[in-house]
Amino acid sequence: MKSEEITKRIYSLQVDNKPGVLSRIAGLFSGRGFNIESLCVAETTDPLVSRITLVTNGDRNILEQIKKHLNKLVDVIKVTDFNVTPFVQREMALIKIRAKAEYRAEILRMVDIFRSRIVDVGAEYYIIEVTGDEGKIAAFLELLKPMGIKEIARTGAIALAREKK
Amino acid sequence: MKSEEITKRIYSLQVDNKPGVLSRIAGLFSGRGFNIESLCVAETTDPLVSRITLVTNGDRNILEQIKKHLNKLVDVIKVTDFNVTPFVQREMALIKIRAKAEYRAEILRMVDIFRSRIVDVGAEYYIIEVTGDEGKIAAFLELLKPMGIKEIARTGAIALAREKK
Repeated sequence: MKSEEITKRIYSLQVDNKPGVLSRIAGLFSGRGFNIESLCVAETTDPLVSRITLVTNGDRNILEQIKKHLNKLVDVIKVTDFNVTPFVQREMALIKIRAKAEYRAEILRMVDIFRSRIVDVGAEYYIIEVTGDEGKIAAFLELLKPMGIKEIARTGAIALAREKK
Repeated sequence: MKSEEITKRIYSLQVDNKPGVLSRIAGLFSGRGFNIESLCVAETTDPLVSRITLVTNGDRNILEQIKKHLNKLVDVIKVTDFNVTPFVQREMALIKIRAKAEYRAEILRMVDIFRSRIVDVGAEYYIIEVTGDEGKIAAFLELLKPMGIKEIARTGAIALAREKK
């Protein structure tokens, strides 16, 4: 396995909204040594169905194995592989940043440029909500780092397929 | 267990970024019959640490049990219980909605009112990105429903503690 062949991949799974499904999927990954970079599970508009979006990585062989194993799980209704389908991808982060008086104007400028939002203000911190793809969030964090990031919570990616035509 | 006593609770876990951690946590919930309403796992600024935000529900006794069990897991560095701490909570949804010509003006008005964003446009659909607490997203979905929701992907909640003073 050459390291240059390792790529990131997003799978979206529609699964039965039943206890144990997440445990089986997480167990499949850890048992076989597949990576999970991030994972979200939440309800859909159908109360019987949950959607799991997971970001993994591996070479072509590993990614094929992952897809095959996911498709075999009985509670998995449908697997969407966002390699074959064009898609829109977004994640969200909440970032708590030190807001010393001398940095505030600069923080507000960056919040504006990145179309993010300040959702909480304290005596010495801001909490910023930002959405975007992984690259945008990485760039935003890189720019904020010198001011002092106190804490961060990220959702991991979610994705929906674009439609043709 | 009286049904009126059941409440929702958010726990944020800092965990070792190691294979098997998510599987153990998901297994704890399914093995003991605890509910997971939503769950996000993603990296933090420290490569050795991941953060899991999970939303669960139960009566006071069950919520205490969940906390106790989470604290016992060796890979769990810290459990934050967002019942005792004031917090900021957000989730994100991507919503693919039918965009028939006669509904477009109304959809755009709602996108504006809910401070959401159109992130993809097709011949017959929009994909909308919306962030907010659970109540806001539920209200938005309720208003969009009559126009025809084709698909939805949600992250589940993430949260950060407010600071005192």
